[in-house]
Amino acid sequence: MTSALTLGVDVGGTKILGLLVDADGAVLAEHRAPTPAGDARAIEDALVEVVDELRPDDGPVTALGIGAAGLVDGRRGVVLHSAHVPWRDEPLRDRLAERTGLPVTLDNDATAAAWAEQRYGAGAGSPDMVFVALGTGIGGAIFSDGRLVRGRNGLAGEFGHVQVVPDGRPCPCGLRGCWERYCSGTALEVSTLDEVGHWLAVGLAGLVAAFDPDVVVLGGGLGVPDTGLLAMAEARLPDHLTGAAHRPLPRLAYAALGPRAGALGAAGLARQG
Amino acid sequence: MTSALTLGVDVGGTKILGLLVDADGAVLAEHRAPTPAGDARAIEDALVEVVDELRPDDGPVTALGIGAAGLVDGRRGVVLHSAHVPWRDEPLRDRLAERTGLPVTLDNDATAAAWAEQRYGAGAGSPDMVFVALGTGIGGAIFSDGRLVRGRNGLAGEFGHVQVVPDGRPCPCGLRGCWERYCSGTALEVSTLDEVGHWLAVGLAGLVAAFDPDVVVLGGGLGVPDTGLLAMAEARLPDHLTGAAHRPLPRLAYAALGPRAGALGAAGLARQG
Repeated sequence: MTSALTLGVDVGGTKILGLLVDADGAVLAEHRAPTPAGDARAIEDALVEVVDELRPDDGPVTALGIGAAGLVDGRRGVVLHSAHVPWRDEPLRDRLAERTGLPVTLDNDATAAAWAEQRYGAGAGSPDMVFVALGTGIGGAIFSDGRLVRGRNGLAGEFGHVQVVPDGRPCPCGLRGCWERYCSGTALEVSTLDEVGHWLAVGLAGLVAAFDPDVVVLGGGLGVPDTGLLAMAEARLPDHLTGAAHRPLPRLAYAALGPRAGALGAAGLARQG
Repeated sequence: MTSALTLGVDVGGTKILGLLVDADGAVLAEHRAPTPAGDARAIEDALVEVVDELRPDDGPVTALGIGAAGLVDGRRGVVLHSAHVPWRDEPLRDRLAERTGLPVTLDNDATAAAWAEQRYGAGAGSPDMVFVALGTGIGGAIFSDGRLVRGRNGLAGEFGHVQVVPDGRPCPCGLRGCWERYCSGTALEVSTLDEVGHWLAVGLAGLVAAFDPDVVVLGGGLGVPDTGLLAMAEARLPDHLTGAAHRPLPRLAYAALGPRAGALGAAGLARQG
Protein backbone atom coordinates (compact mmCIF):
# COMPACT_ATOMS: atom_id res chain seq x y z
CA MET A 1 0.00 0.00 0.00
CA THR A 2 1.44 3.34 -1.01
CA SER A 3 -1.82 5.27 -1.24
CA ALA A 4 -2.10 8.83 0.04
CA LEU A 5 1.59 9.55 0.53
CA THR A 6 2.69 13.16 0.80
CA LEU A 7 6.06 14.87 0.72
CA GLY A 8 7.16 17.44 3.27
CA VAL A 9 10.22 19.62 2.83
CA ASP A 10 11.70 21.98 5.42
CA VAL A 11 13.88 24.70 3.92
CA GLY A 12 16.18 26.40 6.41
CA GLY A 13 19.16 28.69 6.09
CA THR A 14 21.66 25.83 6.06
CA LYS A 15 19.84 22.66 4.99
CA ILE A 16 16.90 21.26 3.09
CA LEU A 17 15.24 18.23 4.72
CA GLY A 18 12.63 16.22 2.83
CA LEU A 19 10.41 13.38 4.07
CA LEU A 20 8.03 10.96 2.41
CA VAL A 21 5.15 10.45 4.85
CA ASP A 22 2.06 8.26 4.99
CA ALA A 23 -1.42 9.16 6.25
CA ASP A 24 -0.53 8.18 9.84
CA GLY A 25 2.56 10.38 9.93
CA ALA A 26 4.99 7.50 9.51
CA VAL A 27 8.20 8.49 7.70
CA LEU A 28 8.96 6.19 4.76
CA ALA A 29 12.01 7.97 3.38
CA GLU A 30 14.26 10.94 4.13
CA HIS A 31 16.62 13.04 2.04
CA ARG A 32 18.82 16.02 2.89
CA ALA A 33 20.72 18.59 0.90
CA PRO A 34 22.64 21.75 1.83
CA THR A 35 20.81 25.03 1.16
CA PRO A 36 22.61 26.99 -1.59
CA ALA A 37 21.85 30.04 0.52
CA GLY A 38 22.89 32.86 -1.75
CA ASP A 39 20.66 32.14 -4.72
CA ALA A 40 16.88 31.75 -4.88
CA ARG A 41 16.99 29.86 -8.22
CA ALA A 42 19.59 27.41 -6.91
CA ILE A 43 17.41 26.78 -3.83
CA GLU A 44 14.46 26.05 -6.07
CA ASP A 45 16.57 23.58 -8.07
CA ALA A 46 17.76 21.91 -4.87
CA LEU A 47 14.16 21.61 -3.64
CA VAL A 48 13.10 19.95 -6.89
CA GLU A 49 16.02 17.53 -6.59
CA VAL A 50 14.98 16.57 -3.05
CA VAL A 51 11.43 15.97 -4.27
CA ASP A 52 12.63 13.86 -7.21
CA GLU A 53 14.87 11.84 -4.91
CA LEU A 54 12.01 11.00 -2.53
CA ARG A 55 9.21 10.45 -5.02
CA PRO A 56 8.60 6.72 -5.35
CA ASP A 57 8.48 5.21 -8.83
CA ASP A 58 5.73 2.81 -7.95
CA GLY A 59 3.13 4.82 -6.05
CA PRO A 60 1.21 8.05 -5.97
CA VAL A 61 2.35 11.12 -4.08
CA THR A 62 -0.72 13.29 -3.72
CA ALA A 63 0.78 16.56 -2.52
CA LEU A 64 3.92 18.47 -1.54
CA GLY A 65 4.17 20.65 1.54
CA ILE A 66 6.93 23.20 2.09
CA GLY A 67 7.95 24.73 5.41
CA ALA A 68 10.10 27.78 4.74
CA ALA A 69 12.18 29.93 7.08
CA GLY A 70 10.65 33.32 6.45
CA LEU A 71 7.59 35.51 6.39
CA VAL A 72 5.17 33.33 4.42
CA ASP A 73 1.86 34.43 2.93
CA GLY A 74 0.29 30.98 2.75
CA ARG A 75 -2.86 32.21 1.09
CA ARG A 76 -0.98 33.48 -1.95
CA GLY A 77 1.79 30.92 -1.64
CA VAL A 78 4.51 33.54 -1.47
CA VAL A 79 7.57 33.96 0.76
CA LEU A 80 7.38 37.70 1.42
CA HIS A 81 10.79 37.99 3.04
CA SER A 82 13.40 35.83 4.67
CA ALA A 83 16.34 36.71 6.89
CA HIS A 84 18.24 33.58 5.86
CA VAL A 85 17.53 33.11 2.19
CA PRO A 86 17.33 35.74 -0.58
CA TRP A 87 13.58 35.40 -1.03
CA ARG A 88 11.64 38.60 -1.67
CA ASP A 89 8.02 38.12 -2.73
CA GLU A 90 9.03 34.71 -4.03
CA PRO A 91 6.04 32.79 -5.48
CA LEU A 92 7.49 29.50 -4.29
CA ARG A 93 4.21 27.57 -4.24
CA ASP A 94 3.34 28.14 -7.87
CA ARG A 95 6.95 27.69 -9.04
CA LEU A 96 7.17 24.29 -7.35
CA ALA A 97 3.71 23.23 -8.48
CA GLU A 98 4.76 23.94 -12.04
CA ARG A 99 8.05 22.08 -11.76
CA THR A 100 6.79 19.03 -9.82
CA GLY A 101 3.25 18.71 -11.17
CA LEU A 102 2.01 18.33 -7.57
CA PRO A 103 -0.44 20.40 -5.54
CA VAL A 104 1.80 22.44 -3.20
CA THR A 105 1.12 24.11 0.16
CA LEU A 106 3.52 26.67 1.59
CA ASP A 107 3.85 27.46 5.28
CA ASN A 108 6.31 29.03 7.66
CA ASP A 109 8.71 26.43 9.04
CA ALA A 110 7.70 27.03 12.67
CA THR A 111 4.04 26.70 11.71
CA ALA A 112 4.77 23.36 10.08
CA ALA A 113 6.76 22.11 13.10
CA ALA A 114 3.99 23.24 15.45
CA TRP A 115 1.40 21.36 13.40
CA ALA A 116 3.40 18.15 13.76
CA GLU A 117 3.92 18.66 17.51
CA GLN A 118 0.21 19.33 18.00
CA ARG A 119 -0.76 16.27 15.99
CA TYR A 120 1.89 13.69 16.89
CA GLY A 121 4.18 15.24 19.51
CA ALA A 122 4.31 17.20 22.76
CA GLY A 123 1.03 18.99 22.10
CA ALA A 124 -1.04 15.93 21.20
CA GLY A 125 -4.35 16.07 23.05
CA SER A 126 -3.95 19.78 23.83
CA PRO A 127 -6.19 21.82 21.55
CA ASP A 128 -4.87 25.17 22.81
CA MET A 129 -1.15 25.18 22.21
CA VAL A 130 1.54 27.83 21.91
CA PHE A 131 4.70 26.72 20.12
CA VAL A 132 7.96 28.58 20.61
CA ALA A 133 11.01 27.46 18.62
CA LEU A 134 14.21 28.79 20.17
CA GLY A 135 16.95 28.72 17.58
CA THR A 136 19.06 31.49 16.03
CA GLY A 137 15.89 33.52 16.47
CA ILE A 138 12.39 32.62 17.67
CA GLY A 139 9.71 30.99 15.58
CA GLY A 140 6.18 30.58 16.83
CA ALA A 141 2.70 29.33 16.20
CA ILE A 142 -0.65 29.18 17.99
CA PHE A 143 -3.38 26.55 18.04
CA SER A 144 -6.81 27.52 19.34
CA ASP A 145 -9.40 24.81 19.86
CA GLY A 146 -7.35 22.46 17.68
CA ARG A 147 -7.03 24.90 14.78
CA LEU A 148 -4.02 26.86 13.62
CA VAL A 149 -4.32 30.61 14.19
CA ARG A 150 -2.96 31.72 10.83
CA GLY A 151 -4.05 35.33 10.63
CA ARG A 152 -5.24 37.28 7.64
CA ASN A 153 -2.12 36.66 5.56
CA GLY A 154 -0.86 33.54 7.27
CA LEU A 155 1.72 35.61 9.15
CA ALA A 156 0.63 34.97 12.75
CA GLY A 157 3.15 33.70 15.30
CA GLU A 158 6.02 36.18 14.87
CA PHE A 159 6.54 36.38 18.63
CA GLY A 160 10.28 36.82 18.27
CA HIS A 161 9.90 40.41 17.14
CA VAL A 162 7.61 41.62 19.88
CA GLN A 163 9.43 44.44 21.69
CA VAL A 164 10.39 43.50 25.25
CA VAL A 165 12.96 46.25 25.98
CA PRO A 166 12.36 49.87 24.90
CA ASP A 167 15.37 51.09 22.90
CA GLY A 168 16.93 47.69 23.49
CA ARG A 169 19.40 45.62 21.51
CA PRO A 170 19.30 46.21 17.75
CA CYS A 171 17.73 43.40 15.72
CA PRO A 172 18.60 42.47 12.12
CA CYS A 173 14.89 42.99 11.38
CA GLY A 174 15.47 46.73 11.80
CA LEU A 175 13.74 47.15 15.16
CA ARG A 176 15.24 47.33 18.65
CA GLY A 177 14.52 45.30 21.78
CA CYS A 178 12.91 42.32 20.02
CA TRP A 179 12.28 39.29 22.28
CA GLU A 180 14.62 37.07 20.25
CA ARG A 181 17.56 39.42 20.97
CA TYR A 182 17.21 38.31 24.64
CA CYS A 183 15.97 34.78 24.28
CA SER A 184 17.59 32.65 21.55
CA GLY A 185 20.86 31.13 20.51
CA THR A 186 22.00 34.55 19.37
CA ALA A 187 21.17 36.01 22.78
CA LEU A 188 23.36 33.35 24.40
CA GLU A 189 26.39 34.87 22.69
CA VAL A 190 26.08 37.90 25.00
CA SER A 191 24.04 36.56 27.95
CA THR A 192 24.21 33.75 30.49
CA LEU A 193 21.73 30.89 30.23
CA ASP A 194 20.11 32.24 33.39
CA GLU A 195 19.34 35.55 31.69
CA VAL A 196 17.89 33.73 28.70
CA GLY A 197 15.74 31.74 31.14
CA HIS A 198 14.50 34.98 32.67
CA TRP A 199 13.50 36.37 29.29
CA LEU A 200 11.90 33.09 28.33
CA ALA A 201 9.68 33.31 31.44
CA VAL A 202 8.80 36.96 30.73
CA GLY A 203 7.91 36.25 27.11
CA LEU A 204 5.94 33.11 27.85
CA ALA A 205 4.02 34.97 30.56
CA GLY A 206 2.90 37.46 27.92
CA LEU A 207 1.88 34.66 25.56
CA VAL A 208 -0.05 32.88 28.32
CA ALA A 209 -1.86 36.12 29.24
CA ALA A 210 -2.78 36.65 25.58
CA PHE A 211 -3.74 33.04 24.61
CA ASP A 212 -4.35 31.00 27.76
CA PRO A 213 -2.92 27.79 26.24
CA ASP A 214 -3.12 24.43 27.94
CA VAL A 215 0.41 23.67 26.81
CA VAL A 216 3.46 25.66 25.75
CA VAL A 217 5.79 23.56 23.60
CA LEU A 218 9.44 24.63 23.41
CA GLY A 219 11.23 23.56 20.25
CA GLY A 220 14.26 24.57 18.23
CA GLY A 221 17.92 23.98 19.05
CA LEU A 222 17.60 25.43 22.58
CA GLY A 223 14.25 23.79 23.27
CA VAL A 224 15.88 20.57 24.49
CA PRO A 225 16.32 19.10 27.98
CA ASP A 226 20.10 19.72 28.05
CA THR A 227 19.56 23.46 28.39
CA GLY A 228 17.27 23.24 31.41
CA LEU A 229 15.37 26.22 30.02
CA LEU A 230 11.98 24.62 30.56
CA ALA A 231 12.53 24.21 34.29
CA MET A 232 13.74 27.80 34.56
CA ALA A 233 10.69 29.11 32.72
CA GLU A 234 8.35 26.94 34.76
CA ALA A 235 9.76 28.16 38.06
CA ARG A 236 9.62 31.83 37.07
CA LEU A 237 6.44 31.98 35.02
CA PRO A 238 4.19 32.77 38.03
CA ASP A 239 6.33 35.81 38.88
CA HIS A 240 5.54 37.37 35.50
CA LEU A 241 2.00 36.18 34.76
CA THR A 242 -0.88 38.40 35.81
CA GLY A 243 -3.31 36.74 38.21
CA ALA A 244 -1.09 33.65 38.44
CA ALA A 245 -2.39 32.83 41.92
CA HIS A 246 -6.00 32.85 40.66
CA ARG A 247 -5.74 30.83 37.46
CA PRO A 248 -4.63 27.44 36.16
CA LEU A 249 -1.12 27.50 34.67
CA PRO A 250 -0.33 25.76 31.40
CA ARG A 251 1.82 22.70 31.09
CA LEU A 252 5.30 23.38 29.64
CA ALA A 253 6.89 20.69 27.48
CA TYR A 254 9.87 20.22 25.22
CA ALA A 255 9.10 19.42 21.60
CA ALA A 256 9.03 15.67 21.07
CA LEU A 257 9.72 15.23 17.36
CA GLY A 258 13.20 16.69 16.99
CA PRO A 259 14.54 18.37 13.84
CA ARG A 260 12.20 16.43 11.53
CA ALA A 261 9.09 18.18 12.94
CA GLY A 262 9.06 20.88 10.25
CA ALA A 263 9.13 18.48 7.30
CA LEU A 264 6.66 16.14 9.01
CA GLY A 265 4.27 19.03 9.59
CA ALA A 266 4.69 20.29 6.03
CA ALA A 267 3.71 16.83 4.77
CA GLY A 268 0.67 16.82 7.06
CA LEU A 269 -0.41 20.31 6.05
CA ALA A 270 -0.09 19.31 2.39
CA ARG A 271 -2.48 16.43 3.07
CA GLN A 272 -5.05 18.86 4.46
CA GLY A 273 -4.63 21.02 1.35
CA MET B 1 -43.22 38.09 17.54
CA THR B 2 -41.14 37.83 20.64
CA SER B 3 -39.51 34.51 19.85
CA ALA B 4 -35.86 33.86 20.59
CA LEU B 5 -35.16 36.91 22.73
CA THR B 6 -32.10 36.88 24.92
CA LEU B 7 -30.88 39.11 27.73
CA GLY B 8 -27.37 40.51 27.93
CA VAL B 9 -25.97 42.16 31.03
CA ASP B 10 -22.62 43.96 31.29
CA VAL B 11 -21.33 44.21 34.87
CA GLY B 12 -18.62 46.80 35.35
CA GLY B 13 -17.05 48.43 38.38
CA THR B 14 -19.53 51.31 38.42
CA LYS B 15 -22.67 50.24 36.55
CA ILE B 16 -24.75 47.30 35.44
CA LEU B 17 -26.24 47.62 31.94
CA GLY B 18 -28.88 45.17 30.72
CA LEU B 19 -30.38 44.77 27.25
CA LEU B 20 -33.24 42.72 25.81
CA VAL B 21 -32.11 41.70 22.31
CA ASP B 22 -33.70 39.87 19.38
CA ALA B 23 -32.11 37.36 17.02
CA ASP B 24 -30.90 40.13 14.68
CA GLY B 25 -29.19 42.05 17.46
CA ALA B 26 -31.90 44.71 17.71
CA VAL B 27 -32.24 46.18 21.21
CA LEU B 28 -35.85 46.03 22.46
CA ALA B 29 -35.31 47.34 25.99
CA GLU B 30 -32.52 48.68 28.20
CA HIS B 31 -32.10 48.99 31.96
CA ARG B 32 -29.26 50.32 34.10
CA ALA B 33 -28.37 50.17 37.77
CA PRO B 34 -25.33 51.25 39.79
CA THR B 35 -22.93 48.47 40.82
CA PRO B 36 -22.94 48.02 44.60
CA ALA B 37 -19.21 47.54 44.27
CA GLY B 38 -18.21 46.44 47.74
CA ASP B 39 -20.42 43.39 48.07
CA ALA B 40 -20.67 40.29 45.86
CA ARG B 41 -24.13 39.31 47.21
CA ALA B 42 -25.51 42.82 46.61
CA ILE B 43 -24.17 42.72 43.03
CA GLU B 44 -25.92 39.42 42.46
CA ASP B 45 -29.18 40.89 43.78
CA ALA B 46 -28.78 43.95 41.53
CA LEU B 47 -28.16 41.66 38.52
CA VAL B 48 -31.34 39.71 39.24
CA GLU B 49 -33.28 42.97 39.53
CA VAL B 50 -31.99 44.13 36.13
CA VAL B 51 -33.03 40.78 34.63
CA ASP B 52 -36.51 40.96 36.21
CA GLU B 53 -36.96 44.51 34.98
CA LEU B 54 -36.16 43.57 31.37
CA ARG B 55 -37.89 40.21 31.15
CA PRO B 56 -41.14 40.63 29.19
CA ASP B 57 -44.36 39.27 30.69
CA ASP B 58 -45.68 38.14 27.36
CA GLY B 59 -42.87 36.35 25.62
CA PRO B 60 -40.08 33.89 26.05
CA VAL B 61 -36.53 34.82 26.97
CA THR B 62 -34.42 31.84 26.03
CA ALA B 63 -31.11 32.70 27.70
CA LEU B 64 -29.12 35.19 29.76
CA GLY B 65 -25.58 36.27 28.94
CA ILE B 66 -23.30 38.04 31.39
CA GLY B 67 -20.21 40.06 30.53
CA ALA B 68 -18.18 40.59 33.69
CA ALA B 69 -15.16 42.81 34.38
CA GLY B 70 -12.66 40.26 35.57
CA LEU B 71 -10.77 37.05 34.93
CA VAL B 72 -13.58 34.75 33.80
CA ASP B 73 -13.39 30.98 33.44
CA GLY B 74 -16.26 30.65 31.00
CA ARG B 75 -16.05 26.87 30.87
CA ARG B 76 -16.82 26.54 34.57
CA GLY B 77 -18.89 29.73 34.73
CA VAL B 78 -16.72 31.27 37.42
CA VAL B 79 -15.25 34.74 37.90
CA LEU B 80 -11.80 33.83 39.18
CA HIS B 81 -10.78 37.31 40.17
CA SER B 82 -11.75 40.91 39.54
CA ALA B 83 -9.87 44.14 40.17
CA HIS B 84 -13.12 46.12 40.40
CA VAL B 85 -15.58 43.87 42.20
CA PRO B 86 -14.98 41.59 45.22
CA TRP B 87 -15.33 38.39 43.19
CA ARG B 88 -12.97 35.53 44.07
CA ASP B 89 -13.82 32.18 42.50
CA GLU B 90 -17.40 33.39 42.26
CA PRO B 91 -19.68 30.78 40.57
CA LEU B 92 -21.76 33.52 39.00
CA ARG B 93 -23.18 31.44 36.16
CA ASP B 94 -24.75 28.78 38.34
CA ARG B 95 -25.93 31.30 40.95
CA LEU B 96 -27.77 33.31 38.30
CA ALA B 97 -29.12 30.23 36.56
CA GLU B 98 -30.64 29.15 39.85
CA ARG B 99 -32.15 32.54 40.64
CA THR B 100 -33.48 33.35 37.16
CA GLY B 101 -34.34 29.88 35.88
CA LEU B 102 -32.56 30.72 32.61
CA PRO B 103 -29.60 29.09 30.87
CA VAL B 104 -26.71 31.46 31.60
CA THR B 105 -23.40 32.06 29.81
CA LEU B 106 -20.59 33.97 31.48
CA ASP B 107 -17.85 35.82 29.62
CA ASN B 108 -15.31 38.52 30.21
CA ASP B 109 -16.77 41.96 29.39
CA ALA B 110 -14.17 42.71 26.71
CA THR B 111 -14.82 39.33 25.09
CA ALA B 112 -18.53 40.14 24.96
CA ALA B 113 -17.92 43.60 23.48
CA ALA B 114 -15.53 42.14 20.92
CA TRP B 115 -18.14 39.57 19.87
CA ALA B 116 -20.64 42.34 19.20
CA GLU B 117 -18.13 44.43 17.26
CA GLN B 118 -17.13 41.44 15.15
CA ARG B 119 -20.75 40.56 14.43
CA TYR B 120 -22.44 43.94 14.09
CA GLY B 121 -19.78 46.64 14.43
CA ALA B 122 -16.34 47.77 13.30
CA GLY B 123 -15.10 44.22 12.75
CA ALA B 124 -18.03 42.98 10.67
CA GLY B 125 -16.70 41.13 7.62
CA SER B 126 -13.24 40.75 9.17
CA PRO B 127 -12.76 37.18 10.41
CA ASP B 128 -9.34 37.90 11.97
CA MET B 129 -9.86 40.68 14.49
CA VAL B 130 -7.97 41.95 17.50
CA PHE B 131 -10.05 43.99 19.93
CA VAL B 132 -8.39 46.37 22.38
CA ALA B 133 -10.59 48.21 24.88
CA LEU B 134 -8.77 51.24 26.33
CA GLY B 135 -10.43 52.21 29.57
CA THR B 136 -9.13 52.37 33.13
CA GLY B 137 -7.06 49.38 32.04
CA ILE B 138 -6.96 47.37 28.81
CA GLY B 139 -9.37 44.63 27.87
CA GLY B 140 -8.82 42.47 24.85
CA ALA B 141 -10.05 39.67 22.66
CA ILE B 142 -8.99 37.83 19.51
CA PHE B 143 -11.01 36.38 16.64
CA SER B 144 -9.33 33.92 14.30
CA ASP B 145 -11.12 32.85 11.15
CA GLY B 146 -14.39 34.14 12.61
CA ARG B 147 -14.06 32.28 15.91
CA LEU B 148 -13.23 33.60 19.34
CA VAL B 149 -9.82 32.53 20.63
CA ARG B 150 -10.89 31.69 24.16
CA GLY B 151 -7.98 29.63 25.44
CA ARG B 152 -8.04 26.61 27.69
CA ASN B 153 -9.88 28.33 30.54
CA GLY B 154 -11.53 31.13 28.60
CA LEU B 155 -8.87 33.56 29.84
CA ALA B 156 -7.29 34.61 26.54
CA GLY B 157 -7.01 38.31 25.66
CA GLU B 158 -5.34 39.72 28.79
CA PHE B 159 -3.06 41.93 26.71
CA GLY B 160 -3.08 44.69 29.30
CA HIS B 161 -0.75 42.78 31.58
CA VAL B 162 1.92 41.89 29.06
CA GLN B 163 5.18 43.44 30.28
CA VAL B 164 6.38 46.26 28.03
CA VAL B 165 8.94 47.91 30.35
CA PRO B 166 11.34 45.82 32.48
CA ASP B 167 11.05 46.96 36.12
CA GLY B 168 8.52 49.52 34.95
CA ARG B 169 5.57 51.20 36.65
CA PRO B 170 3.92 49.10 39.36
CA CYS B 171 0.53 47.65 38.42
CA PRO B 172 -2.32 46.86 40.85
CA CYS B 173 -2.14 43.30 39.48
CA GLY B 174 1.13 42.90 41.37
CA LEU B 175 3.48 42.98 38.36
CA ARG B 176 5.55 45.87 37.00
CA GLY B 177 5.68 47.42 33.56
CA CYS B 178 2.31 46.10 32.31
CA TRP B 179 1.15 47.56 28.99
CA GLU B 180 -1.93 49.15 30.56
CA ARG B 181 0.27 51.23 32.91
CA TYR B 182 1.47 53.05 29.75
CA CYS B 183 -1.59 52.90 27.54
CA SER B 184 -4.95 53.53 29.23
CA GLY B 185 -6.97 56.16 31.05
CA THR B 186 -4.85 55.53 34.11
CA ALA B 187 -1.68 56.07 32.11
CA LEU B 188 -3.03 59.44 30.96
CA GLU B 189 -2.90 60.66 34.56
CA VAL B 190 0.91 60.63 34.34
CA SER B 191 1.59 60.80 30.58
CA THR B 192 0.71 63.00 27.63
CA LEU B 193 -1.67 61.69 24.99
CA ASP B 194 1.33 61.54 22.64
CA GLU B 195 3.11 59.07 24.94
CA VAL B 196 -0.02 56.96 25.21
CA GLY B 197 -0.17 56.99 21.41
CA HIS B 198 3.42 55.76 21.27
CA TRP B 199 2.70 52.87 23.62
CA LEU B 200 -0.48 52.05 21.73
CA ALA B 201 1.58 51.69 18.53
CA VAL B 202 4.21 49.55 20.29
CA GLY B 203 1.62 47.24 21.82
CA LEU B 204 -0.45 46.92 18.66
CA ALA B 205 2.71 46.11 16.70
CA GLY B 206 3.29 43.17 19.03
CA LEU B 207 -0.30 42.00 18.62
CA VAL B 208 -0.09 42.29 14.84
CA ALA B 209 3.17 40.30 14.79
CA ALA B 210 1.55 37.60 16.93
CA PHE B 211 -1.92 37.40 15.26
CA ASP B 212 -1.76 39.05 11.84
CA PRO B 213 -5.32 40.39 12.08
CA ASP B 214 -7.12 42.06 9.20
CA VAL B 215 -8.56 44.64 11.58
CA VAL B 216 -7.66 46.04 15.00
CA VAL B 217 -10.72 47.52 16.71
CA LEU B 218 -10.12 50.11 19.43
CA GLY B 219 -12.88 50.35 22.00
CA GLY B 220 -13.33 51.55 25.56
CA GLY B 221 -13.51 55.12 26.82
CA LEU B 222 -10.31 56.17 25.01
CA GLY B 223 -11.12 54.24 21.85
CA VAL B 224 -13.13 57.12 20.40
CA PRO B 225 -12.36 59.60 17.62
CA ASP B 226 -11.97 62.57 20.03
CA THR B 227 -8.68 61.20 21.33
CA GLY B 228 -7.05 60.86 17.92
CA LEU B 229 -5.30 57.74 19.20
CA LEU B 230 -6.15 55.69 16.15
CA ALA B 231 -4.40 58.10 13.79
CA MET B 232 -1.35 58.16 16.08
CA ALA B 233 -1.18 54.38 16.19
CA GLU B 234 -1.70 54.08 12.45
CA ALA B 235 1.12 56.51 11.68
CA ARG B 236 3.57 54.83 14.06
CA LEU B 237 2.68 51.17 13.66
CA PRO B 238 5.14 50.57 10.78
CA ASP B 239 8.02 51.86 12.94
CA HIS B 240 7.42 49.08 15.48
CA LEU B 241 6.20 46.17 13.37
CA THR B 242 8.74 43.67 12.11
CA GLY B 243 8.86 43.35 8.34
CA ALA B 244 6.35 46.19 7.94
CA ALA B 245 7.72 47.06 4.51
CA HIS B 246 7.18 43.50 3.28
CA ARG B 247 3.68 42.70 4.55
CA PRO B 248 0.11 43.98 4.40
CA LEU B 249 -0.84 46.11 7.40
CA PRO B 250 -4.17 45.67 9.16
CA ARG B 251 -6.97 48.18 9.09
CA LEU B 252 -7.39 50.13 12.35
CA ALA B 253 -10.92 51.15 13.36
CA TYR B 254 -12.72 52.65 16.32
CA ALA B 255 -15.40 50.47 17.88
CA ALA B 256 -18.79 51.25 16.34
CA LEU B 257 -21.29 50.14 18.97
CA GLY B 258 -20.44 52.39 21.91
CA PRO B 259 -20.92 51.44 25.58
CA ARG B 260 -23.71 48.97 24.84
CA ALA B 261 -21.35 46.60 22.99
CA GLY B 262 -20.64 44.47 26.07
CA ALA B 263 -24.30 43.79 26.89
CA LEU B 264 -25.15 43.28 23.21
CA GLY B 265 -22.35 40.75 22.88
CA ALA B 266 -23.34 38.98 26.09
CA ALA B 267 -26.87 38.58 24.67
CA GLY B 268 -25.44 37.20 21.43
CA LEU B 269 -23.09 34.79 23.19
CA ALA B 270 -26.02 33.55 25.31
CA ARG B 271 -27.89 32.77 22.09
CA GLN B 272 -24.98 30.65 20.87
CA GLY B 273 -25.00 28.83 24.21
